[in-house]
Amino acid sequence: MVGGGEGAFIGAVHRMAASLDGAYQLVCGAFSSDAERNRRSAAGLGLDPARAYATLDALLAGEAALPADQRMQALAIVTPNHLHAPAAIAALDAGFHVFSEKPMALDLDEALAIEAAVQRSGRLYGLAFTYSGYPLVEEARARVARGDFGAIRLVQAEYWQGWLSQPIDRDGQKQAEWRTDPARAGLGGCLGDIGTHAFQLAEHVSGLTVEALSADLAIHVPGRRLDDDVAALLRFEGGARGVLKATQVAAGEENGLRLRVYGEKGGLEWSQMEPNTLTLRWLDRPAETVRAGGPGLDPLTAARLRTPSGHPEGYIEAFANLYQSFGRTIRAGAGAPPVRGAADWFPGITDGLRTMTFVEAMIQNSAGDAKWTALAKVLEARRISAGLPPQTAPAPIA
Amino acid sequence: MVGGGEGAFIGAVHRMAASLDGAYQLVCGAFSSDAERNRRSAAGLGLDPARAYATLDALLAGEAALPADQRMQALAIVTPNHLHAPAAIAALDAGFHVFSEKPMALDLDEALAIEAAVQRSGRLYGLAFTYSGYPLVEEARARVARGDFGAIRLVQAEYWQGWLSQPIDRDGQKQAEWRTDPARAGLGGCLGDIGTHAFQLAEHVSGLTVEALSADLAIHVPGRRLDDDVAALLRFEGGARGVLKATQVAAGEENGLRLRVYGEKGGLEWSQMEPNTLTLRWLDRPAETVRAGGPGLDPLTAARLRTPSGHPEGYIEAFANLYQSFGRTIRAGAGAPPVRGAADWFPGITDGLRTMTFVEAMIQNSAGDAKWTALAKVLEARRISAGLPPQTAPAPIA
Amino acid sequence: MVGGGEGAFIGAVHRMAASLDGAYQLVCGAFSSDAERNRRSAAGLGLDPARAYATLDALLAGEAALPADQRMQALAIVTPNHLHAPAAIAALDAGFHVFSEKPMALDLDEALAIEAAVQRSGRLYGLAFTYSGYPLVEEARARVARGDFGAIRLVQAEYWQGWLSQPIDRDGQKQAEWRTDPARAGLGGCLGDIGTHAFQLAEHVSGLTVEALSADLAIHVPGRRLDDDVAALLRFEGGARGVLKATQVAAGEENGLRLRVYGEKGGLEWSQMEPNTLTLRWLDRPAETVRAGGPGLDPLTAARLRTPSGHPEGYIEAFANLYQSFGRTIRAGAGAPPVRGAADWFPGITDGLRTMTFVEAMIQNSAGDAKWTALAKVLEARRISAGLPPQTAPAPIA
Amino acid sequence: MVGGGEGAFIGAVHRMAASLDGAYQLVCGAFSSDAERNRRSAAGLGLDPARAYATLDALLAGEAALPADQRMQALAIVTPNHLHAPAAIAALDAGFHVFSEKPMALDLDEALAIEAAVQRSGRLYGLAFTYSGYPLVEEARARVARGDFGAIRLVQAEYWQGWLSQPIDRDGQKQAEWRTDPARAGLGGCLGDIGTHAFQLAEHVSGLTVEALSADLAIHVPGRRLDDDVAALLRFEGGARGVLKATQVAAGEENGLRLRVYGEKGGLEWSQMEPNTLTLRWLDRPAETVRAGGPGLDPLTAARLRTPSGHPEGYIEAFANLYQSFGRTIRAGAGAPPVRGAADWFPGITDGLRTMTFVEAMIQNSAGDAKWTALAKVLEARRISAGLPPQTAPAPIA
Repeated sequence: MVGGGEGAFIGAVHRMAASLDGAYQLVCGAFSSDAERNRRSAAGLGLDPARAYATLDALLAGEAALPADQRMQALAIVTPNHLHAPAAIAALDAGFHVFSEKPMALDLDEALAIEAAVQRSGRLYGLAFTYSGYPLVEEARARVARGDFGAIRLVQAEYWQGWLSQPIDRDGQKQAEWRTDPARAGLGGCLGDIGTHAFQLAEHVSGLTVEALSADLAIHVPGRRLDDDVAALLRFEGGARGVLKATQVAAGEENGLRLRVYGEKGGLEWSQMEPNTLTLRWLDRPAETVRAGGPGLDPLTAARLRTPSGHPEGYIEAFANLYQSFGRTIRAGAGAPPVRGAADWFPGITDGLRTMTFVEAMIQNSAGDAKWTALAKVLEARRISAGLPPQTAPAPIA
Repeated sequence: MVGGGEGAFIGAVHRMAASLDGAYQLVCGAFSSDAERNRRSAAGLGLDPARAYATLDALLAGEAALPADQRMQALAIVTPNHLHAPAAIAALDAGFHVFSEKPMALDLDEALAIEAAVQRSGRLYGLAFTYSGYPLVEEARARVARGDFGAIRLVQAEYWQGWLSQPIDRDGQKQAEWRTDPARAGLGGCLGDIGTHAFQLAEHVSGLTVEALSADLAIHVPGRRLDDDVAALLRFEGGARGVLKATQVAAGEENGLRLRVYGEKGGLEWSQMEPNTLTLRWLDRPAETVRAGGPGLDPLTAARLRTPSGHPEGYIEAFANLYQSFGRTIRAGAGAPPVRGAADWFPGITDGLRTMTFVEAMIQNSAGDAKWTALAKVLEARRISAGLPPQTAPAPIA
Repeated sequence: MVGGGEGAFIGAVHRMAASLDGAYQLVCGAFSSDAERNRRSAAGLGLDPARAYATLDALLAGEAALPADQRMQALAIVTPNHLHAPAAIAALDAGFHVFSEKPMALDLDEALAIEAAVQRSGRLYGLAFTYSGYPLVEEARARVARGDFGAIRLVQAEYWQGWLSQPIDRDGQKQAEWRTDPARAGLGGCLGDIGTHAFQLAEHVSGLTVEALSADLAIHVPGRRLDDDVAALLRFEGGARGVLKATQVAAGEENGLRLRVYGEKGGLEWSQMEPNTLTLRWLDRPAETVRAGGPGLDPLTAARLRTPSGHPEGYIEAFANLYQSFGRTIRAGAGAPPVRGAADWFPGITDGLRTMTFVEAMIQNSAGDAKWTALAKVLEARRISAGLPPQTAPAPIA
Repeated sequence: MVGGGEGAFIGAVHRMAASLDGAYQLVCGAFSSDAERNRRSAAGLGLDPARAYATLDALLAGEAALPADQRMQALAIVTPNHLHAPAAIAALDAGFHVFSEKPMALDLDEALAIEAAVQRSGRLYGLAFTYSGYPLVEEARARVARGDFGAIRLVQAEYWQGWLSQPIDRDGQKQAEWRTDPARAGLGGCLGDIGTHAFQLAEHVSGLTVEALSADLAIHVPGRRLDDDVAALLRFEGGARGVLKATQVAAGEENGLRLRVYGEKGGLEWSQMEPNTLTLRWLDRPAETVRAGGPGLDPLTAARLRTPSGHPEGYIEAFANLYQSFGRTIRAGAGAPPVRGAADWFPGITDGLRTMTFVEAMIQNSAGDAKWTALAKVLEARRISAGLPPQTAPAPIA
């Protein structure tokens, strides 16, 4: 693990998620650039002090020097955003699988560089789009994919938070501080932090690729340097329309990620804060409430559950589902990651590139006068400037 | 009453709303252009057959000829949209007050003509933006107005219906038929029918004027001639941002009008389908559930309630509140309608012009390549073409 | 109308409910024993002053003296409880139909006397068990009756209020004052006021007769003379078990009447505070949310609705449904009231006697040491003391 | 660990809960009496094969023979009920701490024997009343204890399940089979399995001791030998009244444990299926929604949370909180377990004896003709027959 020292939020979540099912063991880390904090973090976790490395480079070198059966197999990256890409590339090139926090990187250039590293290393790359690990998100995706609702017409993806309503980033709150600093957060503020989650969920569940968007980014708190509130109109392949809203200044909101998808015959609604309920609405019959563990679930959903119906599972369990899929894929020794809809699918390069393209398209569109920005063009421009061969359109999401 | 014969939906609602509190008496009508249906409708309502007029013109003439103490005082217009403006103008010019269904008219030109008729007649004009008659909508408006949430930053107005998901307009469903016919519905389909409700509610509760918007109108059902699904990004005076979504093809949705407004310190959420609950969220303390009839209500809210807390009031009662305000204003003999926030406020010309400007701005923007369309410019252009004096900006909503 | 002068709550509700559909006209009243208040009430309602009678006797005599086509047809009784029985008996014996507030009477003796008056007069008697007028209560009843859930095993009826949590009855609150006064309220406090609603709803929807109960009545507010909180275990015919809870000291609760019924294959839940939703749960498939106006309704339910789905109807509309059924039955000239499950059924003598028997059984059981009290025995004892022929069991509820 | 071999539900939950925070390591087990299944279970968990013992006796002997720093410290008992007491007593007497599944034992006699073993061994005994591990249950308890609601008047504890609606116990469903077998389940069926949870939660949160109850036990599924549905009226010390309902035949219900507590000034409601929300209702102000991780929490609640507000925690995390408290108490080396309300409180002997007394009182009362059964008398009779010194009343719950 790199990052995630004492007091960090997401590092602890990764550790709980990985250990929940007994499939991972934490063997080493570079938890902090502060030597004493690094040491204390390792000790608190019961690690061999020799494997609490001062830097990521030392970690990669030290682990590579160990016998194969003692060596770290995969690196979890839980640092602020600016370290995601360098850490991922170094680890992949050193022969380790990588499971990284999102957003994938500071910008699309970095994301393309990670993709290249994955291709040359043949290692696996997983990305913590945690919400796609919820069992009922899988149920939603499966039902759309099998056509329960007919052709999809509408997608509404929202992510409401309120914790940045006041200038706490100037008052020393660590989480807020780096998330609002362009050097450490990347191109987007709210956009990169949670807008990417909403976008990934919209494409993942609908199985549809966003072709173009019209965006409005705002900074509501005076003095803030990155957006704290975004909205977009979306146009999907095949004619579906969508709205995406993500904000961190909806005072009083907690972590309100919510998705609605409607087709010709019905629609679905899922809300992260009550993740064990999936509402299905129908044109010709009463709405249904599908429940985690209840009757009528897709087998892929059932496989992601640990308890019988009515025993709530939450965020850590969703996270653990991604780690489980990632771990099984490592153990299976497959060269390529499973495709969307496969039992052990986990979010990776595809969703990473899609979301980083989304970030750049949002910023370009919001700054300009044109109504629509095509995502394929944004990606293409970056590929060309990176010296990559042309690609007429992003790989379809499904 | 003009329109609202046997089998019509909204005419019956107007009659129940007007009669609920015993303040109105239905005395005459031109319910249908079909003579037999007109006669039967009048008989079913217990009217004097002599006051079941064949046409609106006959009604206006007939009633004007009666002694003042027997004569109709106000005309309720419950026809399809294309008759709203001619009926309103004729009735106003004949000296009657008018309470009209929305949208105000087929387009902004007609709306300006109604405004002119109101000005020259000195009669009152009410518009059935029914949802602003709900007690807890008043509570929401009052709390924003008194600054409970600080400066407003975000507005989210949604109106989800699904009843036009299939081409029922081609299969003889009357309500669907005229609503999707440009000649009878006006410029907008879903936009005029329910998009205007969402827009009116957003401005009414936030107390903020929308300055510009970016829109996407869609027709999802093949062969349909008017939009059945719209979305917009909104920019309000003072910097607040908003999203407006209105659709009639969200299969399985009923009548999901929902408003969220957030300021610096907290926010509110109200949903028409559970109208007796208003959720308040706060940055620094637990969310509160304000209930119709419960503790902590603004006096203006309490005045709009008929039953103690926990005895649900609904759509008809909200409608009746508008009729009550309209009736009290008639009886008070005031020349001008009450301003927003006054005890007897009801929606009228101001909200009518705002919403018709919104309709035209949405259509212009969606059809063009420009990112933003300013509502003031749309209104100004119509005023000029109507030979009216220039007006630099629409009257503020508050 | 007798009772319901200025400031009274339930009288105004009766008037709105009766007038909503235009089927009733208020023609006379004895609104208050205070002459001036009586006069003002009548004037406020636009009545002919000559028909604002000083007493009920005067009203009955005055109306009986009018020509048949001008005369009052039915009397609405909206007084405190102690006047229910004398008013009903006098009106029935004077040849008028009666629609009375509940509870039916002060005790079972009085209720039996009303039954006798109905039998000898041949007039109709309706009782305001308002909650059985909700469309989705009808849906619930119909689904149980047609066997959707299989044999019924469990019934849970709850009625939570909190408004009597403090001794407001000693502080001049009128509604509280008479409801806690044995001379005006009758044998039960909370028991008669809302416990009867819960009991009626339980039997009405389940279609099952309660055979025996075990009760616990409490007075929580010091100095109060009637129960303010009751609970009971219920045993139904055929083996179903139930729990009934009714309280007026659940501080913070509003009007929380809620019913759950479960059979072998599934169950239902309905809550008065969100009356347009009926939840159906199933052993082998996801729960369904049946909505007023939505797909899948029983025709009897649909007939009780005034608006399309998503336009909430509430308490006044439920009340109006009872008045509609009562009025149609009067107009039909039928000698006997419709049976439960018929289109125009309304609650009357049957439910009145059942609930008064329940009240007496609760009081007897709570005061004694025996575990169970059989309702049939309670009724039988009262019949014998009233000189009525023996009856081995109460008429079944269905 | 004893029990919890392949395919068992609750054993896996214990392992996840214990490992979540990294404070426990599973070192040995006697997972199954089937040798091959025992071996496979141990292998699947990555255990040293030498520590997969054939029997509990072998486990206790084997572990006791190990050096202190390698030896098991605490035994988790996750067998069917009939083995709880023998396993607990043997382990305690062998010097190990015990964390046991509930119910504590087959009957009160066994429970008293466990209490004696705890007293003579000086070891710790924890009992998996899992629901008291939820953070917002702690919040509820703390708020009642500090008097937020004034004196408590009403307690309503419900536990609705539906999974035993059909005779699946006769069709080979393992979980159902032993739970309906008196030899393995104990005196109560539904009563012991989930009625005890409801009772424990009622006393734990209210801080009040139930003095007497009146009960009705039912068997709805023909041929079943133990109750599958229970209800009781409760009388608490100090005058509060309560209702307890627990059933396993509410077809379609999942795991609906729900608690409501009301005092003079307000009340609370908590539902296990949405465990991160606690509703507070007030007589004089709007209801509040307290959220896990949100503002306004008691410090004891905050200490039981792992994620920020809006990131749901569930059943496994609640379970892990009990394991955390138990583990910290072991490490602290304290002789006595922490008292209710202390940071590291966990349910143990006190709640075990209370719930087993409740089970016996329910059965006695339901079988007899007396209205009320006093819990103190039930306990006293058992103590006397067990040769224990008299005790005039059960230790108060608080």
